[in-house]
Amino acid sequence: MTDSTHAGRPVRLAVDAMGGDLAPGPIMDGVACALRADKALTVVLLGDHDVVTMFADVHDRCEPHPTTEVIAMDEHPASAVRSKKDSSIVVGCRLVAEGAVDGFFSAGNTGAMTAAGTLVTGRIKGVARPAIATVIPTPGPPTILLDAGANADVKPEYLLQFALMGSAYSTAALGVKEPRIGLLSIGSEETKGSQLVIEAHELMKDVPGFIGNVEGTDITSGVVDVVVTDGFTGNVALKLMEGLSKTLFKELKTAMTSGAASTMAAAVLKPKLAALRDRLDPDATGGAPLLGVNGVVLIGHGSSGERAVTNALRVGAAVVRNDLVAHIRDAIAASSEA
Amino acid sequence: MTDSTHAGRPVRLAVDAMGGDLAPGPIMDGVACALRADKALTVVLLGDHDVVTMFADVHDRCEPHPTTEVIAMDEHPASAVRSKKDSSIVVGCRLVAEGAVDGFFSAGNTGAMTAAGTLVTGRIKGVARPAIATVIPTPGPPTILLDAGANADVKPEYLLQFALMGSAYSTAALGVKEPRIGLLSIGSEETKGSQLVIEAHELMKDVPGFIGNVEGTDITSGVVDVVVTDGFTGNVALKLMEGLSKTLFKELKTAMTSGAASTMAAAVLKPKLAALRDRLDPDATGGAPLLGVNGVVLIGHGSSGERAVTNALRVGAAVVRNDLVAHIRDAIAASSEA
Repeated sequence: MTDSTHAGRPVRLAVDAMGGDLAPGPIMDGVACALRADKALTVVLLGDHDVVTMFADVHDRCEPHPTTEVIAMDEHPASAVRSKKDSSIVVGCRLVAEGAVDGFFSAGNTGAMTAAGTLVTGRIKGVARPAIATVIPTPGPPTILLDAGANADVKPEYLLQFALMGSAYSTAALGVKEPRIGLLSIGSEETKGSQLVIEAHELMKDVPGFIGNVEGTDITSGVVDVVVTDGFTGNVALKLMEGLSKTLFKELKTAMTSGAASTMAAAVLKPKLAALRDRLDPDATGGAPLLGVNGVVLIGHGSSGERAVTNALRVGAAVVRNDLVAHIRDAIAASSEA
Repeated sequence: MTDSTHAGRPVRLAVDAMGGDLAPGPIMDGVACALRADKALTVVLLGDHDVVTMFADVHDRCEPHPTTEVIAMDEHPASAVRSKKDSSIVVGCRLVAEGAVDGFFSAGNTGAMTAAGTLVTGRIKGVARPAIATVIPTPGPPTILLDAGANADVKPEYLLQFALMGSAYSTAALGVKEPRIGLLSIGSEETKGSQLVIEAHELMKDVPGFIGNVEGTDITSGVVDVVVTDGFTGNVALKLMEGLSKTLFKELKTAMTSGAASTMAAAVLKPKLAALRDRLDPDATGGAPLLGVNGVVLIGHGSSGERAVTNALRVGAAVVRNDLVAHIRDAIAASSEA
């Protein structure tokens, strides 16, 4: 993450202490670690009164903001957001809307975060649908994939906006000056793909950095900085990658630990494999922003632990300091005028 | 592949000697190997006169069938199939339609194979759209994924038929008695997913073996025997798996061969890793059938070499002996009556 230009600019991030399968313990550990790493970071901690006040009491630059409700992982997103006004997710998104914080992170219900980000924080003017952008490791610099699951059904115009927003995120979060953008399809020719993709390709032709269609192999090859797709395909791809990496490492372990000579050889290689595994771990980024809303809203994996939270807050502070939201606003405004 | 019950039943398969990036050499090597392995197999070799007659002259149970045209890998599928009536792809599909052979394999232009299979071999009565079924390795028995790319845009009714056809293929090719079928989505609840998937879920409820929605992680987990999806998502998933496996093994190699101790340790583990890589290699199956046409039409990867061709012909002979087409015909007929 390139935050060097603005390192030190004070940033206030709200964090949902109640969100995710492991909350609150490992979430708080991640907050503590992030506060130690970034001396210009202040965290506003949302959640159960006792939990957040106790933690804030013993940590500098940490303010408690008790909330009385929790949206569970399996609740229906839109109705939960409507009915639970004092839930940590709704309050966090409201604090962003009010400008009381620069951003908000939760590892809670992804659908509820998407709904609250869209309805409570609110969309940037001109944005049709916010999209979740996720960072995919490649052998070189990482690639941004969006939409990772906010919109199962999209229109060609949405994909055009995803391209603009993804490009702004690539610059703000990863420091890529002129991001190369690819449209995910099933053939590189512009006539290949679904009707949706063929129409989107036509709309995207004038987008700076657009290199045309890319295929499934290109998601992890590093050939582009931004891969644009609908939230159905993007979510399937993301979960497939997680599943396949896990399966491969498991099989690798089995292959490597059968037989004495292998076990010894495996011990030598263990640190290197751990480093590779680490790099492929989704926790290395930790938070996926909901792009297109009026503020930095970061969604964590349900299984987010200390490392994921620490990294999510690092990404959050970086994109705040690099004015991500202003860049998206400008890109969407320029595109509407064109 | 379970072909034990009918082993020995004579099978005639046509093979496109001109199809694929490596043709004809490695294709012929694969044919030779398949003929050695299966004494009840006869191959009808399609392609350039000199190539096919010379090969047939020196191999038992191999008949030359010269063709005068070739559809290139990058030609427009439908127009190539219409204009090149004496191409190996069109002739192969016609031989299947005429009952002159039991099946046809080509590693050539996938789009042209799909078009020729649909138009020349012809659809099974009641089938709306043929689909490409591919075998995905998992830690346990493999999973069938379809559609792998024949139909970028589908309707809920097509997905229902894909489920029935994929189930029949799972039984005929892999010997699974009661295949478990999953509908690929972005959440396990039946209300989750795109409009297409939500409607397809409703239609599929009464399909024997249907267990509901599965997610991207489940493509490689082995939790179902058949994963049903549209040809856009299926093709992206397939290519993503190929790309990710390749990237991971490459990074693994780099990690393992930096430093003397690592290099020695890696040498010990090499055979085991090779076995794992082998199992994940798409060539282990070699041919993906176009399900829903009136015969066995198998499509190979463009990069198919000897091993892929040998395995494709093994799969081809197995599904002929296990009456795949008759089972699909019955399943579609039963579904139309329901």
